[in-house]
Amino acid sequence: MTTLDLSTDAVTLTEQLVNIESVSRNEQAIADAVEAALRTLPHLTVTRRGHTVVARTDLGHAERVVIAGHLDTVPLNHNLPARRVGDLLHGLGTCDMKGGDAVILRLAATVPAPSRDVTYILYEAEEIEAEHNGLNLLGRSDPDLMAADFAILMEPSGAVVEGGCQGTMRVDVRTTGERAHSARSWKGVNAIHGAAGVLARLNTFEPRMPVIDGLEYHEGLNAVFISGGVAGNVLPDECVVSVNYRFAPDRSEADAERFLREFFDGYDVTLRDSAPGAMPGLGLPAAKAFVDTVGGDVRPKFGWTDVSRFSALGVPAVNFGPGDPMLAHKQEEHVPVAQIEHCERQLRRWLGGEP
Amino acid sequence: MTTLDLSTDAVTLTEQLVNIESVSRNEQAIADAVEAALRTLPHLTVTRRGHTVVARTDLGHAERVVIAGHLDTVPLNHNLPARRVGDLLHGLGTCDMKGGDAVILRLAATVPAPSRDVTYILYEAEEIEAEHNGLNLLGRSDPDLMAADFAILMEPSGAVVEGGCQGTMRVDVRTTGERAHSARSWKGVNAIHGAAGVLARLNTFEPRMPVIDGLEYHEGLNAVFISGGVAGNVLPDECVVSVNYRFAPDRSEADAERFLREFFDGYDVTLRDSAPGAMPGLGLPAAKAFVDTVGGDVRPKFGWTDVSRFSALGVPAVNFGPGDPMLAHKQEEHVPVAQIEHCERQLRRWLGGEP
Repeated sequence: MTTLDLSTDAVTLTEQLVNIESVSRNEQAIADAVEAALRTLPHLTVTRRGHTVVARTDLGHAERVVIAGHLDTVPLNHNLPARRVGDLLHGLGTCDMKGGDAVILRLAATVPAPSRDVTYILYEAEEIEAEHNGLNLLGRSDPDLMAADFAILMEPSGAVVEGGCQGTMRVDVRTTGERAHSARSWKGVNAIHGAAGVLARLNTFEPRMPVIDGLEYHEGLNAVFISGGVAGNVLPDECVVSVNYRFAPDRSEADAERFLREFFDGYDVTLRDSAPGAMPGLGLPAAKAFVDTVGGDVRPKFGWTDVSRFSALGVPAVNFGPGDPMLAHKQEEHVPVAQIEHCERQLRRWLGGEP
Repeated sequence: MTTLDLSTDAVTLTEQLVNIESVSRNEQAIADAVEAALRTLPHLTVTRRGHTVVARTDLGHAERVVIAGHLDTVPLNHNLPARRVGDLLHGLGTCDMKGGDAVILRLAATVPAPSRDVTYILYEAEEIEAEHNGLNLLGRSDPDLMAADFAILMEPSGAVVEGGCQGTMRVDVRTTGERAHSARSWKGVNAIHGAAGVLARLNTFEPRMPVIDGLEYHEGLNAVFISGGVAGNVLPDECVVSVNYRFAPDRSEADAERFLREFFDGYDVTLRDSAPGAMPGLGLPAAKAFVDTVGGDVRPKFGWTDVSRFSALGVPAVNFGPGDPMLAHKQEEHVPVAQIEHCERQLRRWLGGEP
């Protein structure tokens, strides 16, 4: 088993974590290493569930915060081991999100008496179906371990605070027709031609850009797939446009579905999947204190993240981690070491640790 | 080997032919039976090429006509053996086109001294790619065997004369865009949304319906496939609409392509495949004599058939065979026995045979 050295700097620790390959469903080794390292720290109570590790202080503070990161990565793409080049650390998981995990482990090890109680969560299977997601499972098996006044998810956000997240919904919009030989097309009804109206309507979409807690969100409505066709000489009797709606967190999933059904009124609309957004909650005292301490810009989070799992439990949550989210899942994934150091420094300040 | 009895009636002979299974690429048995039967007839010169059989009279007439039919069928669909129910003969190939083949064999056997020289062609592989098509191969290896003043293709036409055929062309119309995460869709360009204009344009198509030799053709322009999409959370950077144009025979393939490129001006258009139409040529003396003799309606042929192979060799050609073309390739394929009898009677009259 790799032994993690929590006394080293966060960048070196990131490199150690990256070099323990942990593609989703293969998190045993990294979870073992993380658990072993945390169990050496007498000020923490460690719990393990599957390959999810939870470590808590219990100092009796009035306020408790969660700081969380996932341990898994997307599949390998010839991008291991980690490589340090100048001010960047390259490799699978550097950005998404072992830089954040390293910060969590450093804080856990080096801030024995934080100014607020902390629950550190390092979890499995964020990159795959929700049924495997460690945070999702923990919320069901041990909701008390996720209870907090505020949560920070260390997803890459360019080391600035990104509040909340937008929801996402996918629907299939279907047109139907009647098959006929294309040599006698007037005997049939072409379902692909019928989809012209669906696409035209998509082109009229005006995105809502509501401002929530001072953050401007930006909705999107996009066809992500289209398919139709039977044979090269047959009028197709079905065409399906798969549409992804990204909605600002002031809309519930029910609101979003209602909007889509109205928007595509007259067409057959089937809900395929959906996940709610998360309100930034920046007006709440714990969140406000955090933003005041770490400073810098606060931006809205457009992509969907696990902050919405906290939001669903009534815990305001923000994204705050090193790395450019646009690089996540890319072969050339990397993280600026300065952002790892910045996140660690700001969180340490917030937790009242030694500078 | 099945022995065909050419002295029996055409309906019984159709049944015999249907019961020799001859899905494309499996025509050996039927071609052997046809060849053997024709070789017993001293007034015919028989030539075999692959599983295509040609039998010719050579009486020194000024005029020569071709009467042709294909021996193969589409795949089995639980529709063999043949079943006679009332006035209908059911089974694979009854309609497309062993009823016509039986008429050809009956004429070959029972009109030893036709009033015009006749080339009977029974050929392989019409239902599959053109490279295997027996008529296509014969036109290349032995063009003299296809030479004639007029040709009759016994494709099902409801036992009425269907003149010429429409051409067919397939193009891909492609839109492109720029990928982006669907959570930040304003950073990309959605290629599926871009296809709205392609579909809208298809909906504006006004079919040409030119009258040629008294026959009204009817063009068609239809999307037959559409596809696009990368992932459920990605703006697609490509959408392809596959369009089938059925064009009246007064348009050449070059005309058709020019029309499509103008129609889809501004879009990326790629030619996928194409086959020319065939002019009905009903004004030509041999065709006129045929129509005058067999009588009845003359209709335009909308679907593409092998008549265009004769047309390409400068031989006017019509479709005239028993069976409803809409039943071809269907599980419930069948042919009215009266149409087999009608076609035989009319062709016999035209060839000056005994009634």
